[in-house]
Amino acid sequence: MRSSTMRCFTIFTLLLLLSQGHAASHKLLSSPFSTALETLQKQLGYTFKSIDLLRRAMTHASFSEENNKAFAILGAAVIETSVSFHLLSKDVDISPKELNRRLSQVSSVDSSCAVDGTRLGLQKIVRVSPKTNSSTPAVVCGAFRAIFAAISIDTGKSDDAGNVFWNLHGGDLGSAVAL
Amino acid sequence: MRSSTMRCFTIFTLLLLLSQGHAASHKLLSSPFSTALETLQKQLGYTFKSIDLLRRAMTHASFSEENNKAFAILGAAVIETSVSFHLLSKDVDISPKELNRRLSQVSSVDSSCAVDGTRLGLQKIVRVSPKTNSSTPAVVCGAFRAIFAAISIDTGKSDDAGNVFWNLHGGDLGSAVAL
Repeated sequence: MRSSTMRCFTIFTLLLLLSQGHAASHKLLSSPFSTALETLQKQLGYTFKSIDLLRRAMTHASFSEENNKAFAILGAAVIETSVSFHLLSKDVDISPKELNRRLSQVSSVDSSCAVDGTRLGLQKIVRVSPKTNSSTPAVVCGAFRAIFAAISIDTGKSDDAGNVFWNLHGGDLGSAVAL
Repeated sequence: MRSSTMRCFTIFTLLLLLSQGHAASHKLLSSPFSTALETLQKQLGYTFKSIDLLRRAMTHASFSEENNKAFAILGAAVIETSVSFHLLSKDVDISPKELNRRLSQVSSVDSSCAVDGTRLGLQKIVRVSPKTNSSTPAVVCGAFRAIFAAISIDTGKSDDAGNVFWNLHGGDLGSAVAL
């Protein structure tokens, strides 16, 4: 009888712990930041295997030592590769001058990168310190670029990230930049 | 009898034309430039579907209007993407400072790009005008970078080109740069 009571108590305790764990993970999933990441994935048309990569991409250096600064460097390279690859694939005879002009447009923080990022609403998602304004072009741009590093690492292929960028940017670079 | 002679003459003429065509294509295949492209493909560990892309990558602006200048722009982006992708995949916590340091190393015309290109013997392959010295770092580097644009366009995937670069560069970036 005593052993049976003990067993019952153990099972009850385990169930209680499990339910608390479930509640905790549920709480984590339903935080405003996590909900925003879910929505962002839908906008990107890409679902992460490791959501932590997107979480880091949406974290500014003012918020944490674990931030998106190195990601933004890879992301910028992915964007440059994607743009020049698409333009050269479309016209193998494109002049270096024209190619550089398009690359400058797309790499410009103010005219392209921050525009794309703001359109995705990144200024409302990216985590910054209380003293930092998340709407500045540099913050939005860093977060936008970091997304493509996160996708590259998640899939193991930078081309996948480049394709997501190309789709977001509208395919037709000229018109997207003019937005 | 006359018709038979005519037929015989026609067949002879056709055979002559065919053999000349064969000789011409054979001559093209066995030119020193074409032989060098064959050897280069073996060194790269990559065989082109469209050899014209490698042909263009090995053509300096001083030699022809159809040259490698725009290819070199895409190639430089492919290299930057490949290096930062590999470094971040190996260590997701790499500092932006360290990542930028490695990228500067690999993008430097004198210390890395021209070293890799010269090791491949590109200074002996790249076509330049008689007045141009094909051994200068800028010429070798442009040709080296252009290779990765040519592979990207040939396969439709810049990751394939990035992997060829990574293999050529030795995998361990630190030691390759020190060569």
